[in-house]
Amino acid sequence: MPRTVDWETEGLGNSGVVVLVDQTLLPREVRFLKITQTQDLVECIKRLAVRGAPALGVAGAFGVALAFQEHCGLSQNSADGHGGQSQPPATMPDEFTEAVNHLREARPTAVNLGRMVDRVASHAPRGFEAVLTEALKIRDEEIAASEAMGKRGAELVAELVGKPKATAMTICNTGGLASVERGTALAVIQTLHELGQLELALALETRPLLQGARLTAWELSQMEAPYELIVDSAGPAIMAQGKVDVVLTGADRIARNGDTANKIGTFALALGAQYAGVPFLVVAPESTVDISTRSGQDIEIEDRGAQEVRSIQETQMSVSDAPARNPAFDVTPASLITAIVTERRVIRLDQGETPGG
Amino acid sequence: MPRTVDWETEGLGNSGVVVLVDQTLLPREVRFLKITQTQDLVECIKRLAVRGAPALGVAGAFGVALAFQEHCGLSQNSADGHGGQSQPPATMPDEFTEAVNHLREARPTAVNLGRMVDRVASHAPRGFEAVLTEALKIRDEEIAASEAMGKRGAELVAELVGKPKATAMTICNTGGLASVERGTALAVIQTLHELGQLELALALETRPLLQGARLTAWELSQMEAPYELIVDSAGPAIMAQGKVDVVLTGADRIARNGDTANKIGTFALALGAQYAGVPFLVVAPESTVDISTRSGQDIEIEDRGAQEVRSIQETQMSVSDAPARNPAFDVTPASLITAIVTERRVIRLDQGETPGG
Repeated sequence: MPRTVDWETEGLGNSGVVVLVDQTLLPREVRFLKITQTQDLVECIKRLAVRGAPALGVAGAFGVALAFQEHCGLSQNSADGHGGQSQPPATMPDEFTEAVNHLREARPTAVNLGRMVDRVASHAPRGFEAVLTEALKIRDEEIAASEAMGKRGAELVAELVGKPKATAMTICNTGGLASVERGTALAVIQTLHELGQLELALALETRPLLQGARLTAWELSQMEAPYELIVDSAGPAIMAQGKVDVVLTGADRIARNGDTANKIGTFALALGAQYAGVPFLVVAPESTVDISTRSGQDIEIEDRGAQEVRSIQETQMSVSDAPARNPAFDVTPASLITAIVTERRVIRLDQGETPGG
Repeated sequence: MPRTVDWETEGLGNSGVVVLVDQTLLPREVRFLKITQTQDLVECIKRLAVRGAPALGVAGAFGVALAFQEHCGLSQNSADGHGGQSQPPATMPDEFTEAVNHLREARPTAVNLGRMVDRVASHAPRGFEAVLTEALKIRDEEIAASEAMGKRGAELVAELVGKPKATAMTICNTGGLASVERGTALAVIQTLHELGQLELALALETRPLLQGARLTAWELSQMEAPYELIVDSAGPAIMAQGKVDVVLTGADRIARNGDTANKIGTFALALGAQYAGVPFLVVAPESTVDISTRSGQDIEIEDRGAQEVRSIQETQMSVSDAPARNPAFDVTPASLITAIVTERRVIRLDQGETPGG
């Protein structure tokens, strides 16, 4: 599978374009966009053509390189024969600063986006090469983190499940499409598949926005993994039938005590896993761990409004003015989580460990 | 709200038509169909224009009256001045027997349909009046049963919740649309609303066929009850926030020990209710109790095929050939059920009672 978001060198020196797969068209169409203007990238981020915390961070990082090309005169400087290396301008032009601000604010709640944009922008005074090098470093860090999570997670699954092949249930999209390659929870499933240790992946469709049906099913079919799609409410029932060996989910935020906020429906899966005695693993980068959040009670849950529940894509399903409650996330208490897997460590909540140490 | 299915006298004597609301058009359009031919009613049953065990039983009962009108010469006999009373033919015409068979087999798994069709057909040798009287009796029994379940359930909710107004969560459609009036679990919510004891109804959309979003939301808006629609996976999470006082569900089959088969997602709600300490009530007619089924392990779960999961109504959501698992029901163990409410009794499973006595 090609990378979800990447930098492609074009023209003189290392000047280039951001290439990303338009996720709003999946799974019907696989279309790659070549983006040359920062403002176009901001639009892509806003309309969810690119999504998922790691992918947003990398897109934002490359976006700063685009902004430099656009506003700091790279094309003029690249004619000096130094392989496209531009000389740093004494102060950054206002247009550059403004473009960086637009990038940072394209998705206000995506902490990773702003963090990576600022990290790359801080190199701007040292010129384009420094900017691009930092952006590529962020991309490579994400790829390495996904690989590490996949490997560590697969080892833990093998240890906990204790049989040659595992049936793994997962929710939302936590694959390469949310990252650059591989992802988090789905990286574990991909690694199991590559090792010949995946019996079956059971993917929840993940209402209301159907990231599981649209994106995870597509990724699983791309990697030719054995999988079945299920409606969200079937997860706990299928576990109770004894047909699932492990649950693997991502995380939006992990509190100091291990309580984990993730896509709505994760908590119900955790209850099902507890009832059926199935290990429940959260797979997420260290950047998701928020030591300043004491417990799940301190995590505010965003309500995304009634329309997503009343309708499915363009189709109105219910009474047209039906009131609806639409919590985007839920909080799974640490007591229901077997372990958290990051790119650096395994935190065995079931053995009394916590992310906060 | 008008009755979901009823008999309307037209023309001479008690001859008439079956009137039913076409549920495939809800909630976009409220259209009543007047059906004069048995074969048209069979088509309505097959394409789910009428659905729900009690409603199917009543539709089938009236269908036998239609068949008698069509094939046993009621119109000729009704000119004799005896108010449409037809004389019984010595033997029933083959066309009548065939029409009754078509009715009985319109939905093979709907036990109630076949049972009620046979009950009415057994009166055919005594003439049309006897047939229609029996069909009307079945309708009235259903209405009385719904009323009794609603009243008994509301009393139990008041007792268990112990506050003036309750927030009740429910799944699928268990309202008047599944019956003639009021229904089962939704009858309890309607009764609470009429008594001023309903704080809020939380209706699960109920994927894959969205009976909650399409039908329950419509019924709640018709009865002007305060309600909110939610995605199925949000049910347990909202309970864990302490915002729900009682869960009310219907049942497809109740085993001797109290294990209950119902719409997929019911089991996840029961886990959520247990976690949050919320009473979990099953509301269903006595005819749902199957003493010959020892426990939930003996209940086979129908898989309805991949297409319902891959798509929503006409819209394809996922990879076009995505494999999918689609269990239509799940089994909630008796240990997670507080009580079962029928038209005759309350069975307190939490106090060791069982349907089998």
